[in-house]
Amino acid sequence: MHTRSFLGISNPFSLPWLGVLFALLLFTNPLQAARPTGEMGKDWGNPKGKACVECHQAETPGLTQEWNHSQHGQSGVNCLDCHQAKPEDKDGFVHEGERISVIVTPKDCSTCHKAEFEEMDGSHHAKAGDILGSLDNLMGEVIGGPAAVTVGCKQCHGGVVEIGADGKPSPGSWPNTGIGRINPDGSKGSCSACHARHTFSKAQARTPDTCGKCHVGPDHPQIEIYNESKHGIVYRASVDKMNLDSDKWVAGIDYSAAPTCATCHMSAGGKEGKTHNVGERISWTLRPAVSKKLNLVKLENGQEFDVPEGEAVPKVGEAAKESKVIEVLTWEDRRNKMKSVCSACHTENMVEGHYKQFDDLVELYNEKFAKPIAAMMEDLKKEGYITPAPFDEKIEWVWWEIWHHEGRRARHGASMSGPDYAWWHGIYDVAKNTYFEFIPELKEVVQHKDGNTKKADELLAKHFKGHEGHDWYFNGLNKEQIEKVRQGYEERYGKGALK
Amino acid sequence: MHTRSFLGISNPFSLPWLGVLFALLLFTNPLQAARPTGEMGKDWGNPKGKACVECHQAETPGLTQEWNHSQHGQSGVNCLDCHQAKPEDKDGFVHEGERISVIVTPKDCSTCHKAEFEEMDGSHHAKAGDILGSLDNLMGEVIGGPAAVTVGCKQCHGGVVEIGADGKPSPGSWPNTGIGRINPDGSKGSCSACHARHTFSKAQARTPDTCGKCHVGPDHPQIEIYNESKHGIVYRASVDKMNLDSDKWVAGIDYSAAPTCATCHMSAGGKEGKTHNVGERISWTLRPAVSKKLNLVKLENGQEFDVPEGEAVPKVGEAAKESKVIEVLTWEDRRNKMKSVCSACHTENMVEGHYKQFDDLVELYNEKFAKPIAAMMEDLKKEGYITPAPFDEKIEWVWWEIWHHEGRRARHGASMSGPDYAWWHGIYDVAKNTYFEFIPELKEVVQHKDGNTKKADELLAKHFKGHEGHDWYFNGLNKEQIEKVRQGYEERYGKGALK
Amino acid sequence: MHTRSFLGISNPFSLPWLGVLFALLLFTNPLQAARPTGEMGKDWGNPKGKACVECHQAETPGLTQEWNHSQHGQSGVNCLDCHQAKPEDKDGFVHEGERISVIVTPKDCSTCHKAEFEEMDGSHHAKAGDILGSLDNLMGEVIGGPAAVTVGCKQCHGGVVEIGADGKPSPGSWPNTGIGRINPDGSKGSCSACHARHTFSKAQARTPDTCGKCHVGPDHPQIEIYNESKHGIVYRASVDKMNLDSDKWVAGIDYSAAPTCATCHMSAGGKEGKTHNVGERISWTLRPAVSKKLNLVKLENGQEFDVPEGEAVPKVGEAAKESKVIEVLTWEDRRNKMKSVCSACHTENMVEGHYKQFDDLVELYNEKFAKPIAAMMEDLKKEGYITPAPFDEKIEWVWWEIWHHEGRRARHGASMSGPDYAWWHGIYDVAKNTYFEFIPELKEVVQHKDGNTKKADELLAKHFKGHEGHDWYFNGLNKEQIEKVRQGYEERYGKGALK
Repeated sequence: MHTRSFLGISNPFSLPWLGVLFALLLFTNPLQAARPTGEMGKDWGNPKGKACVECHQAETPGLTQEWNHSQHGQSGVNCLDCHQAKPEDKDGFVHEGERISVIVTPKDCSTCHKAEFEEMDGSHHAKAGDILGSLDNLMGEVIGGPAAVTVGCKQCHGGVVEIGADGKPSPGSWPNTGIGRINPDGSKGSCSACHARHTFSKAQARTPDTCGKCHVGPDHPQIEIYNESKHGIVYRASVDKMNLDSDKWVAGIDYSAAPTCATCHMSAGGKEGKTHNVGERISWTLRPAVSKKLNLVKLENGQEFDVPEGEAVPKVGEAAKESKVIEVLTWEDRRNKMKSVCSACHTENMVEGHYKQFDDLVELYNEKFAKPIAAMMEDLKKEGYITPAPFDEKIEWVWWEIWHHEGRRARHGASMSGPDYAWWHGIYDVAKNTYFEFIPELKEVVQHKDGNTKKADELLAKHFKGHEGHDWYFNGLNKEQIEKVRQGYEERYGKGALK
Repeated sequence: MHTRSFLGISNPFSLPWLGVLFALLLFTNPLQAARPTGEMGKDWGNPKGKACVECHQAETPGLTQEWNHSQHGQSGVNCLDCHQAKPEDKDGFVHEGERISVIVTPKDCSTCHKAEFEEMDGSHHAKAGDILGSLDNLMGEVIGGPAAVTVGCKQCHGGVVEIGADGKPSPGSWPNTGIGRINPDGSKGSCSACHARHTFSKAQARTPDTCGKCHVGPDHPQIEIYNESKHGIVYRASVDKMNLDSDKWVAGIDYSAAPTCATCHMSAGGKEGKTHNVGERISWTLRPAVSKKLNLVKLENGQEFDVPEGEAVPKVGEAAKESKVIEVLTWEDRRNKMKSVCSACHTENMVEGHYKQFDDLVELYNEKFAKPIAAMMEDLKKEGYITPAPFDEKIEWVWWEIWHHEGRRARHGASMSGPDYAWWHGIYDVAKNTYFEFIPELKEVVQHKDGNTKKADELLAKHFKGHEGHDWYFNGLNKEQIEKVRQGYEERYGKGALK
Repeated sequence: MHTRSFLGISNPFSLPWLGVLFALLLFTNPLQAARPTGEMGKDWGNPKGKACVECHQAETPGLTQEWNHSQHGQSGVNCLDCHQAKPEDKDGFVHEGERISVIVTPKDCSTCHKAEFEEMDGSHHAKAGDILGSLDNLMGEVIGGPAAVTVGCKQCHGGVVEIGADGKPSPGSWPNTGIGRINPDGSKGSCSACHARHTFSKAQARTPDTCGKCHVGPDHPQIEIYNESKHGIVYRASVDKMNLDSDKWVAGIDYSAAPTCATCHMSAGGKEGKTHNVGERISWTLRPAVSKKLNLVKLENGQEFDVPEGEAVPKVGEAAKESKVIEVLTWEDRRNKMKSVCSACHTENMVEGHYKQFDDLVELYNEKFAKPIAAMMEDLKKEGYITPAPFDEKIEWVWWEIWHHEGRRARHGASMSGPDYAWWHGIYDVAKNTYFEFIPELKEVVQHKDGNTKKADELLAKHFKGHEGHDWYFNGLNKEQIEKVRQGYEERYGKGALK
């Protein structure tokens, strides 16, 4: 009905439909229509799978029904097609006469879903397990404990799946559906991280909640931000108009009510085709302490890496990281890809204004807070005020939460138009904790060693005086400003409300 | 089907329908049926708009589809009807041969939506931009930074939209859909703050998530409270029965599953007609440090202002604020309006009990915590223990969060029946931070100046001893109470659980 | 359509349907089909109820419509059937010629819903009002205030409903829909806590948001955890496939998309029949400071109690608590019941792995944090460093939040597969606050009395040195670990990112 009215005669403007449709066909990337590769009867449709289904219909009826309702079930892809172990698979064991694996890896899925595998395999998502060698993980393993890393970090980042002597995954390492899971066959990731088994549904993977399993919480609250953004609000109000089940799903063409995470970061829209490389359209990294714009270098071997703005970028054809550069996307190219998707629904004013406001916020965070505090922390270490070890002094936790939690929330909030996160959970917390947690702790640390806080004052003068945003700290709040404020305040809350 | 069973013969009680329907017609406010004013062919339906649509269908297909699906699109209201610049508009520029504006202001919308414009224009919502002259904003601009105010505060409260030499809004001030936006034509607000472009849907505006864009977060978590309230729970379970798309949308008549924010604060129900003046039914202000009951004075010029209970209220016909009083709603009148909406679904016992419990909580907050702490802060300033400047001492932040964040959460939680917010995010935090943040900081501040904490003890005796709720602080926890508790505790958690 | 394709000929595997259906009939617990008891014309269908409906259709139309749409309305159960006061009811009053009660208690509902009443009446839910004699409540009443307990604690836990001289509930004690409400007729609980009046819908009660009214917030965030779990994500994406309205609702048979809270804790699935005893399938208690596995003893009088693992469990037939033991469910039995529900959708590897990871997390929390800190707190009290009164010293609040808030979040997060809660809101907070809040406060407390921190060091050595997880605290972070971390970090964020 929605669609019918779109073409209906009640519309006073008869759209030149044939022309429009023709245009759509032209600019629609052929990748949109990419179908799973593989051939029925060869790559799937193993007749022995019938026995699996019959038994599992009674044993695990929910799982079996979900498979049956899925495109797999309806197309004849059965249990054995995905779970049969290859001779070389170390995670194989004999079950009811067949050698099978519990784990279906991205490599297994690539038999039929080659393009998706390759896009994902080169992407940041596939590297999420690298956290196992990171500072975050040290904190998890040592200060928290291994059992907390298993049910926490590894359920999003992915862990190494260990295989027992019986060919089954060990209970401590399984279940694990982390996006960067390290599989027994060496492949990275888990398709079911997003496409929950045993439906493996496109529609479900396109919901924002799917991404929110991991992009949630104090340090990367993208789902909370989305939910409070206009995008999220309209999505929740219009989910029945989202056409989430559609095979082809081009923003502005197949649906227009609202974007989900997938729309902007993965799906087709504007001049962009779809991709499973989620980081491709991202121009700022909002992850580290200090944000940088990142150029992207793609290699012949399917891998890729980022080069921060200002550093030398290898050229196409050059050797890099044991392979050869085949494509370079500068941060501007990456941003233009995102803007192209925006343009499916927004005019240029909106898009340019958004990026101006977003960039300004990141610069404010970087220049006023992140860089000077990082520099002070470095000075403290160099001059022996704190140990080289991370996380053994309170000041390190204060700084860590400023950048890793609060500063990210501010930057993510600005990037996705969630004002509450940009301000209250973001810069408000960054500023409050800079002035009333970090600085007092800085003085404490210095006092503890020197018996006075002179060094702290020196560090603050050295690193904070250069930014006008800190003037109030050194000179007090300007009288005129306060007077103006008092007047505004009394108008709102009544005479004398602000003392 | 839902409706059919309501009239169905399976119902053992044949309702006297004609009588009921007649009663409905009588008490239904004629405003319910108010249609947009304006005339097709004069106020909308500019034939030149056809060219806009044709081009934007290819350029920004999502936007254009949304418009086409909307009541605007279906009724022949086109791009140019809303975006054509008036000769006096300073935000006009020539685009493809037509002088247009990017910004469509409430004044523009009032061409056809006069009643909604006027109700909104006099309301608190339209004044949300007044925050630009407030203490909150000082904090934002000075302690945070202007870029944070742009992506934070102003995206809800509204900012001044600046127009460049090219007639286009400057990227730093646009996009902005704050509810109190200050527009180039002097009008205040943004209809698309709630009715997201380019559908401008009633149904979407009626969803609670719409209000939750701004009524969210640590300082005014109305959406979180709604979601955990019975109202929210039943809404989420019954959204398909909410009839959100209905033109007429009277609580208890056109839908009955659950109320949304709009139901109670804006829409028709009981004896109340609909209004875009969101504050009209609110009897307590829960915003300032100390809550007050507010009388509402409406003026001939369409504006209005609040007069706290206990202060002199001007009479109808008297001059006030450069206009004349045309209506006075006492706080009891405002509350009765809300109760009338409640009565669409609840009996008197429920409604009176709710208000008793709500009032009691506000009084507890006011009398035990807010008034005495505010008085101590005033004493500290008067006697030179802290500077007159706001936010330059930690104790000011502690008090600020007690009232502005935690105390509001308690009051909002009680007002909308969210027990978790009333207690855990509310009074629990207020009490914990009063005793274990504010008092220690008070002692610190006093000790810092006087070398002892005598003054702090005096202030606590002066301001806290009068409220029995603080007895435990001065006298310790009563032994009998503790013994009773110990017994209860051991029954729950086992012998010796509470030491 | 969903169902049709399941049986459709497009499916390459013709399931042996007759056999499967037969199996279903066999293992389906006869309780599944239990219908309300009672008889029309005797237990319900009071002809005088017609007058109530006619008047309330005009007075409170929303309430009346909701009733009419409900199974009650459609089956002829009317206002008077539930609200007519029995002669002995002290909460009766005459209203329009009939003696009625405002409150409908579980005992009233048991006229027709006997099995549900009995299951609920013996369960933990019915005892939620016992909090009135607990430490939590002391905090609420004394440190917060009675008005906060009314709108906070009691709206989930239930309060005592007081009846005025007019036979109506007092506004301070009503409305109250706490799950452990203490009713004028002595019965405990409130069916409308979950089945919101006046629809009393199964479908609504099965939504996770229903449970989230109370299982929410800093101290028991089950709904937040569910929402970020795979279960919750798929539920939100598939709510239209959940068959929530179905009378029979067996997991894996009547629906398979996702489980809600009700699925795992109350509804039929695997070999388990449905029950209103929500605690039956729970093997760990995650509520107290130290988690224990609990055996369940059921008594002839319908009541039940828990016996922690390791304590003597009475045998069937023995006398206990003024009744006789009729059934004992060991913690393993309880867990097997849960596993049986899991098996409707999951294979054994998944289920065993989940429990292994969950158990490991609880053990980590118990052994590394909860037990040693609880022991230190006991030592502090015994040796006079802190008073025996609870909550009058800051260190007691720190410990309280570690176990009651953060430690529970970790344990709940692990139990329901919400990695963000298990880690960031859980063990991360527990660890951070143990090392950087609890230990400094411990030293403060000891220093305050002794003038040095020697005793604090002794306590830490006594209680923390035994757990290898605290090695880093005593010996510093291991150099090799840090070096490994530095390398991983630099690979991710660039050379020199980690100083």
